[in-house]
Amino acid sequence: MTSVFDAATAVTPRGEHRYTAELSDGWLIGGGLNGGYLLATVARAVREALPGKPDPLAISAHYLSASRPGAAEVDVRVLRDGGTVATAAADLRQGDVGRISALATYGDLSRLSTGADDLHATAAPPDLPAPEDCVSNAVSVPVGLEAASLLERFDMRFHPDDIGWASGRPNGSGLMRAWFRLEDDRDPDPLSLLLVLDALPPVTFTFGAMGWAPTIELTAHVRAVPAPGWLRVTHASRTMAGGLFEEDCEVFDSTGRLVAQSRQLARMPRPV
Amino acid sequence: MTSVFDAATAVTPRGEHRYTAELSDGWLIGGGLNGGYLLATVARAVREALPGKPDPLAISAHYLSASRPGAAEVDVRVLRDGGTVATAAADLRQGDVGRISALATYGDLSRLSTGADDLHATAAPPDLPAPEDCVSNAVSVPVGLEAASLLERFDMRFHPDDIGWASGRPNGSGLMRAWFRLEDDRDPDPLSLLLVLDALPPVTFTFGAMGWAPTIELTAHVRAVPAPGWLRVTHASRTMAGGLFEEDCEVFDSTGRLVAQSRQLARMPRPV
Repeated sequence: MTSVFDAATAVTPRGEHRYTAELSDGWLIGGGLNGGYLLATVARAVREALPGKPDPLAISAHYLSASRPGAAEVDVRVLRDGGTVATAAADLRQGDVGRISALATYGDLSRLSTGADDLHATAAPPDLPAPEDCVSNAVSVPVGLEAASLLERFDMRFHPDDIGWASGRPNGSGLMRAWFRLEDDRDPDPLSLLLVLDALPPVTFTFGAMGWAPTIELTAHVRAVPAPGWLRVTHASRTMAGGLFEEDCEVFDSTGRLVAQSRQLARMPRPV
Repeated sequence: MTSVFDAATAVTPRGEHRYTAELSDGWLIGGGLNGGYLLATVARAVREALPGKPDPLAISAHYLSASRPGAAEVDVRVLRDGGTVATAAADLRQGDVGRISALATYGDLSRLSTGADDLHATAAPPDLPAPEDCVSNAVSVPVGLEAASLLERFDMRFHPDDIGWASGRPNGSGLMRAWFRLEDDRDPDPLSLLLVLDALPPVTFTFGAMGWAPTIELTAHVRAVPAPGWLRVTHASRTMAGGLFEEDCEVFDSTGRLVAQSRQLARMPRPV
């Protein structure tokens, strides 16, 4: 049985390196479709265009305009393919309107991430109470986002210390920590990790700045094939200036290994 | 008088959104020209193509092959231009060989970075002794890189605790901190910050992994127009796995403000 995520990010080939997708209204948030959902859709098209290199090692997306549910087209141009990695450019459009332009370098994590030549890994998962002792996103919906279909896609369990914003008491920490899994318990893989990297609410919520924070640019690195089970996710920001903020996301798998990281530059939230 | 940096990154228009550059042999390191130098050259061409939006807010570069001194061409395609930001794609080639493909979103930092709507900034400059009490790059050249012309471009003063690698005693910290300025005291600006983000030695040196670390992808965010004077720069990495590592760089200006940050995914160093 196909998971909701896999069905929603499916792409259909239409000629060489050209794909169509049907963007689902199940991933609406704020002013459009979730950026991570769109990134995963683009990444699936790039994977189709790069046989033998299934995994996004690094993908950089610049968001041009808000995507809407419905038909979309992804054009992929292979820029380099040789050795252990390949690089491609991908553009997602709806009609004549560009939504996302991305550059992506792919490889095979099953061959790269042996850990054999690991030199160092100080990255550690966030300290989180057990999922049953955390706060579910089902009961932590900020005012104005009750109707966001995106919230039904995930099972998120927030650290109780990080969720004051949901009840009008933001803690000002600039840090958000949560357990994460997909609604139908689909286990994570390198493609779904791209979704996870933009799934939590904007870290600006912890400063009481609620509402949708449009992404300008997001670059994701997938560092290893994730183990099955719950993921642990952190969002953090250290500088909000000039109406922009950076959001660093880290995703750790059930073994505690850092499997994906991202940084995005986004606009401070607009009132919902 | 034109600074060495400005002369070396100059671009000449050759038709609409097409530019030529003469890549200087003064920026050689390891297997090719320094990635930050190349990024700044690409960024200068993008600036030429986006009038009224002089500053790279976010630029994502995927490195396709090592660049050589000599003629290069930069083609820029404007993907979106309207409102306060514009996004373009840029490709740097030498002959028929692609060297770098980039996506860049530009704006006007002098209008954005008023600080008026700053909500939060916990990012703080590294703790460094005075420049005269730090270790100059003139006396901290790792074996095999003595001939790197790049080292003549910068005045870097490393934290004494972070420089053991230069004498065969790497401290294993995964952290490198230094003062930075250009050789001819050219004051920093948003364009030169792109160079600074890839100027220090790879943080892998602190683990005794010496040699050139080829960049796969580097994304830079310029967060503010830097004040004149010395910059403070940190390089850090928390996960080295599968032959790859991430390197986070932060640049603080003389007022202690975070003015630029980057993350790159690079290959573990090859023996020099």
